[in-house]
Amino acid sequence: MAVNLPLPIPENLKPVAGVALGHAEAGIRKANRKDVLVVKLAPSATVAGVFTKNRFCAAPVQLCKEHLGNLRDGAPIRALVINTGNANAGTGESGLAHAKQTCAELATLLDCAPTQILPFSTGVILEPLPIDRLVAGLPQAIGNLNEDNWHNAALAIMTTDTQPKAASRQVVIDGHTVTLTGISKGAGMIKPNMATMLGFLATDARVAQPVLEQLTKAVADRSFNCITIDGDTSTNDSFIVMATGTSALAVESVDSPAYAALYDAVLGLSQELAQMIVRDGEGATKFITVTVEEGKDVEECRRIAYSIAHSPLVKTAFFASDPNLGRILAAIGYAGVDDLDVGKINLYLDDVWVARNGGRHPDYQEADGQRVMKQSEITIRVKLGRGQAGATIWTCDLSHEYVSINADYRS
Amino acid sequence: MAVNLPLPIPENLKPVAGVALGHAEAGIRKANRKDVLVVKLAPSATVAGVFTKNRFCAAPVQLCKEHLGNLRDGAPIRALVINTGNANAGTGESGLAHAKQTCAELATLLDCAPTQILPFSTGVILEPLPIDRLVAGLPQAIGNLNEDNWHNAALAIMTTDTQPKAASRQVVIDGHTVTLTGISKGAGMIKPNMATMLGFLATDARVAQPVLEQLTKAVADRSFNCITIDGDTSTNDSFIVMATGTSALAVESVDSPAYAALYDAVLGLSQELAQMIVRDGEGATKFITVTVEEGKDVEECRRIAYSIAHSPLVKTAFFASDPNLGRILAAIGYAGVDDLDVGKINLYLDDVWVARNGGRHPDYQEADGQRVMKQSEITIRVKLGRGQAGATIWTCDLSHEYVSINADYRS
Repeated sequence: MAVNLPLPIPENLKPVAGVALGHAEAGIRKANRKDVLVVKLAPSATVAGVFTKNRFCAAPVQLCKEHLGNLRDGAPIRALVINTGNANAGTGESGLAHAKQTCAELATLLDCAPTQILPFSTGVILEPLPIDRLVAGLPQAIGNLNEDNWHNAALAIMTTDTQPKAASRQVVIDGHTVTLTGISKGAGMIKPNMATMLGFLATDARVAQPVLEQLTKAVADRSFNCITIDGDTSTNDSFIVMATGTSALAVESVDSPAYAALYDAVLGLSQELAQMIVRDGEGATKFITVTVEEGKDVEECRRIAYSIAHSPLVKTAFFASDPNLGRILAAIGYAGVDDLDVGKINLYLDDVWVARNGGRHPDYQEADGQRVMKQSEITIRVKLGRGQAGATIWTCDLSHEYVSINADYRS
Repeated sequence: MAVNLPLPIPENLKPVAGVALGHAEAGIRKANRKDVLVVKLAPSATVAGVFTKNRFCAAPVQLCKEHLGNLRDGAPIRALVINTGNANAGTGESGLAHAKQTCAELATLLDCAPTQILPFSTGVILEPLPIDRLVAGLPQAIGNLNEDNWHNAALAIMTTDTQPKAASRQVVIDGHTVTLTGISKGAGMIKPNMATMLGFLATDARVAQPVLEQLTKAVADRSFNCITIDGDTSTNDSFIVMATGTSALAVESVDSPAYAALYDAVLGLSQELAQMIVRDGEGATKFITVTVEEGKDVEECRRIAYSIAHSPLVKTAFFASDPNLGRILAAIGYAGVDDLDVGKINLYLDDVWVARNGGRHPDYQEADGQRVMKQSEITIRVKLGRGQAGATIWTCDLSHEYVSINADYRS
């Protein structure tokens, strides 16, 4: 029951020259299901990523950080390998050994060094990775490597997602056509902290390594780091941007107009992919934008926005289309902004002015709140009356279906 | 579907000399329902309280703090008045005027000053208090004031509670028998920050005002401030301790043995009342104790305990009796303790050693986790391996019923 999330049309997903994708059914957790993806990159590609800040970060995340950390000096990344069905997190030393073995096996098949591989896992935590089945699936994935395989790639990284998430766009920068295509996955355990469950975005622009690193972090902070479904920051969040360098556009500096144009394009696509995750949030029936304005700094605006977005009471009220909006005030009040003057706060639901100066607006009619609450897309807007900063995050409601999905996930 | 929460037996609730309780059916929100309680105190009584830290604290909470703030110099508190059905929060200036009017009307009826009254409200936020109906109900409540009326008092303060919460005990201190009786309410919007939704505890001991203030805060921090149902800190949390001074025991100093004995008795009763709220948590099917040990300080232990207790994924796994315990590791990892070394963490479920040094214990069998998960009372124990501090909090699971209750609350 995704919220206004159309199925991707395979023909609309534009190939990015220098990116070939191959999938396999390796039986990691269940049989007859695409569960391994290999992404092979042209030697000219640069790659940057941001990862979960969860202290229990998964073994593959640890390896990714290590391999990307040496990238400015070393050999380029040649491939990514992603498995679903098992997160390889909370698995200790053996988990790390499994992740290394995965890189080594793929490196042998692709004739490169293990440090040129980035591994990713997603699925159940605290269970040993079935490394033999994963390794056995790699030749199958390599066998169908193809630049026109983005739709299958999106399918191969799904877990509790109800549908694949992928999008594409082309922009003209400095007279050169640049293609961007990305995929993402995730529906639960979603409150990315520096990244999301899994997001992969490729462009054929040529982007210098330090520039790509800066762009990736900046984009993540305004896209994948602005969504939440259940407030549970995953052990495996990863967002990766790949620039294959196969188009004629070269971006050498963050101060160039070309950087700004590419940034806008990457940000737009990343926000679309991130919002797809919220639209497909476990049990979601509403897509909710929470905007906090007039704050002293972005940090306090984000804190209040997340407080609203994580409140089970707010989320269930939205599920019920019940304008029980005092719950939003309560969530603002306990967000931890100690010197907040509630007498200056204004609250709007779309165009409806609900609370003025901290109390119910005298003209507010419940029928108006009810009208907005019944929509599938709703904006909560809070004005704090204490500064110029603002922040926006995207979330969904909390329904019976969320409980069902997460009470049944492993069965 | 409260968890191991027996109905209170009216005869077991011992009267506290100097505390008379009267209830009314005032039709605040619904007809034919006890919704107003007046508690009248002997002139010798001392009273102390702790209140929500929610910045949107309700109008009655603001007045309570004001009236208690002047207590060391001024006239004693003579009565409490509590209404359900409306929280009088997010109501701005008119809400404050209504709370003041409530105090004034009751003061006239009881022949004291308005500042000698403490007002409390609980119910829906952002709706005007029906002050006329509340005031009209006061004579009825005063008409049935009675020291043997604790059970009706517990009934009168219920909202989404499935049953009244009350308990009593007697202890002998310095050769004097001291009686303690208390009531509490709350089932949702429960993550008290300095206090709980509503908790009232009375004893006939004579306790000096500064001593009672210290005792109240110390007890709250180890009882009502250690529970969470949904992480939503209410706008109206209040915990009040009343000492009528009608027994022969006098407690003049926090350094006396009598203080220590009274503290133990008040703490024991407060923990019982606080745990009753969790046992009656909205939709609760499991009562879960989260203990975090070997931390650097209490603050980080509490932070990790709450992170576990608030995770929707952990809570739904417990609802399903599914030992998907990697979710607990993830919640520990994102709790925000930045220098946490996950390689030192041990996790136990009751007597079952689940994770050792950050990874799955080699001897851990899912059948053992399953056995514990099926119980109605479960202890999650986390050892951080980095210090001597510890903290315990109590919570419940997240079920379909929670969503149903909160999607239907106002209808």
